[in-house]
Amino acid sequence: MNARGTGGNRPDDGMADVPARFVETAMQLAAAAREITLAHFRTALPVEAKSDESPVTRADREAEAAMRAIIERQFPEHGILGEEYGSQDAEAEYVWVLDPIDGTRSFIIGDPEYGTLVALTRHGRPVLGLIDMPALGERCLGAAGRPTIFTDARRGAAEARARPCPGLAQATLRVTDPFNYGGDAAAFGRLSTAVGALRFSGDCFNYGQVASGFVDLVAESGLGAYDYSALVPVIEGAGGLITDWSGRPLDLASDGRVVAAGDRACHSEALKLLQE
Amino acid sequence: MNARGTGGNRPDDGMADVPARFVETAMQLAAAAREITLAHFRTALPVEAKSDESPVTRADREAEAAMRAIIERQFPEHGILGEEYGSQDAEAEYVWVLDPIDGTRSFIIGDPEYGTLVALTRHGRPVLGLIDMPALGERCLGAAGRPTIFTDARRGAAEARARPCPGLAQATLRVTDPFNYGGDAAAFGRLSTAVGALRFSGDCFNYGQVASGFVDLVAESGLGAYDYSALVPVIEGAGGLITDWSGRPLDLASDGRVVAAGDRACHSEALKLLQE
Repeated sequence: MNARGTGGNRPDDGMADVPARFVETAMQLAAAAREITLAHFRTALPVEAKSDESPVTRADREAEAAMRAIIERQFPEHGILGEEYGSQDAEAEYVWVLDPIDGTRSFIIGDPEYGTLVALTRHGRPVLGLIDMPALGERCLGAAGRPTIFTDARRGAAEARARPCPGLAQATLRVTDPFNYGGDAAAFGRLSTAVGALRFSGDCFNYGQVASGFVDLVAESGLGAYDYSALVPVIEGAGGLITDWSGRPLDLASDGRVVAAGDRACHSEALKLLQE
Repeated sequence: MNARGTGGNRPDDGMADVPARFVETAMQLAAAAREITLAHFRTALPVEAKSDESPVTRADREAEAAMRAIIERQFPEHGILGEEYGSQDAEAEYVWVLDPIDGTRSFIIGDPEYGTLVALTRHGRPVLGLIDMPALGERCLGAAGRPTIFTDARRGAAEARARPCPGLAQATLRVTDPFNYGGDAAAFGRLSTAVGALRFSGDCFNYGQVASGFVDLVAESGLGAYDYSALVPVIEGAGGLITDWSGRPLDLASDGRVVAAGDRACHSEALKLLQE
């Protein structure tokens, strides 16, 4: 399950792929968002519905605005794509992809399993991804050519490694909402009845669990680029595989169907059921 | 929504109902269990299946054993009912009801939304309840005649208050697993399609969210006395209502069907749909 080379522990490993200053900026973005979302967490904030009926709060907007201001100051030549404020310079070589609160439905019920997602894409392909869980005090950082690092308050930083899985019948699949597959409900039904265990809720947290080797599989549809871009380097840097439902790598133009697995054979079995 | 009297802030409030030394013991039990479960959390512990196919780990057993030893030392005349080691002196006036890990399925996938449940029943009726969330660092403490206290690391201790709800169509229902209702699936289906929002996962954490005013409704079936006893003082002390699906108060002999609501009218509407 280890897709990396043997030099993964060198502090400057992968710098050629993702400059250290970009990693530093990603951490600053997450810190800025964290301060804002935690200040609003469990305060019974008013909730509005967006045009797609997904909920949004002032915390979403303030956190994204704070992140965009940092990017504009540090990298004015980069593009930005955010869930709340849309895209600017989307054709730039580097585009930051931001979801200030992934799991707004959890956030508004005081559930700590919401996250801030920060990705950096180069020519549309994610090369840096950060899943930050403010209320849990933990995060997963992935960057092309480097091992994914999981950090929590109790045990500190450690390399995240996806786990092997003997087969779908032994796999744990975790999805946020089993009733949210729209036209893909039949495909999801085939997969969910084939796995050994099915767990719910979690949003971006679930992909961090795949990277950390506690969940085998996540399969969702209807995601935006701001939902899945950060997940790609995190999953890949932990030795897992994440693609669309046709098995193609994810980029800014993907159709929002995502399947992530810690084990390549398990990913392949899942793809077959999703495509049937 | 406030079912309490006006003297709820006096430090000795309700002492006649629940002696302070019992509250102190409940906190000690949770602390002992917390140390054990956190030491095993995210360590990829071997998982066994019990006779009912629910999973159990060494952490469940060690945590319950530690709690039982404390009770036997401090209150040898009290009974004990635990999820893992069964009942002893179940006919005693006071019986401690213990679930070392509520949400073992979450625990084994490294999800911090698992809890330790400690209840004290008198003549079968829960008079003290503690929902302790070790990995989240928060807890809800309820005792007959006293306001429920919610404590977290960020904001400290505060009275928990359930929220009013204008009607089921505006209610947020949270349940652990929508596919786990067995013969009660039709009843659950009627309720889940009538509410405004449906969220998943969480186990005992969801009842704490009702007490804290972030979720309106939880309805589950197939629970054991160790699952629901601690919830009763927590929900009632926050001004909410928790009963079986016939509207009867919960005690050690209840049938495992539980419905909790922050708002009494909402509880009544839910009961009608569950009973249809």
